[in-house]
Amino acid sequence: MVVRKVTTNHPAGDFAAWMGALQARVEAALARLLPGPDIVPQRLHQAMRYAVLGGGKRVRPLLAFAAGDLAGADSSRTEIVACALECIHTYSLVHDDLPCMDDDILRRGRSSCHVEYDEATALLVGDSLQSFAFQLLGENRLTDGAVAQLEMIRILAAACGSRGMAGGQAFDLASVGKALTVPELEHMHIRKTGALIRASVALGAYCGTALSKEERDHLDRYARAIGLAFQVVDDLLDCEASTATLGKTAGKDAAAKKPTYVSVLGVARARDLAEDLRADAHKALSGFGEKSYRLAALADFIVLRKF
Amino acid sequence: MVVRKVTTNHPAGDFAAWMGALQARVEAALARLLPGPDIVPQRLHQAMRYAVLGGGKRVRPLLAFAAGDLAGADSSRTEIVACALECIHTYSLVHDDLPCMDDDILRRGRSSCHVEYDEATALLVGDSLQSFAFQLLGENRLTDGAVAQLEMIRILAAACGSRGMAGGQAFDLASVGKALTVPELEHMHIRKTGALIRASVALGAYCGTALSKEERDHLDRYARAIGLAFQVVDDLLDCEASTATLGKTAGKDAAAKKPTYVSVLGVARARDLAEDLRADAHKALSGFGEKSYRLAALADFIVLRKF
Repeated sequence: MVVRKVTTNHPAGDFAAWMGALQARVEAALARLLPGPDIVPQRLHQAMRYAVLGGGKRVRPLLAFAAGDLAGADSSRTEIVACALECIHTYSLVHDDLPCMDDDILRRGRSSCHVEYDEATALLVGDSLQSFAFQLLGENRLTDGAVAQLEMIRILAAACGSRGMAGGQAFDLASVGKALTVPELEHMHIRKTGALIRASVALGAYCGTALSKEERDHLDRYARAIGLAFQVVDDLLDCEASTATLGKTAGKDAAAKKPTYVSVLGVARARDLAEDLRADAHKALSGFGEKSYRLAALADFIVLRKF
Repeated sequence: MVVRKVTTNHPAGDFAAWMGALQARVEAALARLLPGPDIVPQRLHQAMRYAVLGGGKRVRPLLAFAAGDLAGADSSRTEIVACALECIHTYSLVHDDLPCMDDDILRRGRSSCHVEYDEATALLVGDSLQSFAFQLLGENRLTDGAVAQLEMIRILAAACGSRGMAGGQAFDLASVGKALTVPELEHMHIRKTGALIRASVALGAYCGTALSKEERDHLDRYARAIGLAFQVVDDLLDCEASTATLGKTAGKDAAAKKPTYVSVLGVARARDLAEDLRADAHKALSGFGEKSYRLAALADFIVLRKF
């Protein structure tokens, strides 16, 4: 792998410390906000906590915090948004792992929710986590204006619905065994992974001082680029990394005959595409200057990660 | 069946016409608001429309309209709320019918969504309908104040989450083959059916002029009573009515060894309970006078219905 075009202007250690601290903060906030394991129905709440807590890179929360920092947000607000995003993301993982979907028994290094509990419970875990995310956005003050907060809810709902994440999953299921073109793949992944990543950046920024239309457009260009890059890298890792490293089953795209950036472009061109998207992301941030260094570092992390 | 205690002070024909007109209005609004069948991903949108359109008593929308009328709401606002409620209700039906849950092949007089399409699509239909409901509440102006609208979103999210509808479904699954007490049954159904019915009344009222705390409490007492009555009558119909009349599989509670008001109380005492709850509902409305006649008629409809 050749890293080119982009140099990072921040010390790697600083980023790792920032990421680690926020991952711990999100974990603690989720543990505090989710219904406790002793609240009835206990088994459902235990399963929700099993699915959400104790793992994950927390990429969407990190993006929300970084965008919130850029907009000068109080991080106690961004924390709630981060938890809502992670609940939506986890709901999608729990449902995607079900036998009628991707049928995967491993997630975040341990048994999938339906294996650890049962299918019906996993279905209800996903359903409840989606509701919980909207509850968090409805019951906490997240912006200075309630009208803007309604817009945040609209953005998140659209991002995870049939024209966003769930729609992307429908595309994914329909594409098994098919030869997709690159634009078709992009079309699918802009929804499946990209929509929630764009929403993460947008919602984080909403927690702070209102940005100009132009600034929001730049941030969204950044988010589009890293959303797609995230999936390209996921496809590369699925064929290059081990199950142990990923904490989820490796090689399953090929096994399931799913078209991926690797199957369509090959490894070298997929890696080039990820790098191009990383460069696009950095370019979109250029107008923000130093303020956007966390978002820049996250673009690097998303493309250069090994897990 | 002896009808007692309560007399209706409104002509039956008027109620039937009101109900029919609003059912048609909700159907038309849902058809207009849901993504069209030609919008990608088409199959998912077609399945969403299949599940939502063309049937159902639309009890939750009717409750929202009646509560909205009581609070002087503009019905164009209540219409959006009604559609959101029906999307949540339909998502719960689609997921409940899945093989890992109640495994039912018949719903609203035709094939369940997963039978007509497939399990994965039905899963995504439910997920997408939940998102769509919150999108409707986020993107339309439904009250005079945005803060009150955030509270509406919080109420709906809490009603359908793990301490509401989804939690009730978890109880239901855990109760198969068990002998529940009447308080345990009530505990389950207050969540499974009651939570969304309470939210329907509350959200309808929020569309109008703000009610006093006392008025909201009265409305909520009404909603609690009819929410429970709805389930008691459902249990009676499950053992007394035919599959053809119900449009869903009759007798399945007994077949699945599920505790019901009929299995716990017997038919006669279950019918008495439904009547007591109908009387409670009417009593809760007494302070509103004539203004509440639609809600009163809906209590009668819920208890006296044959399907």
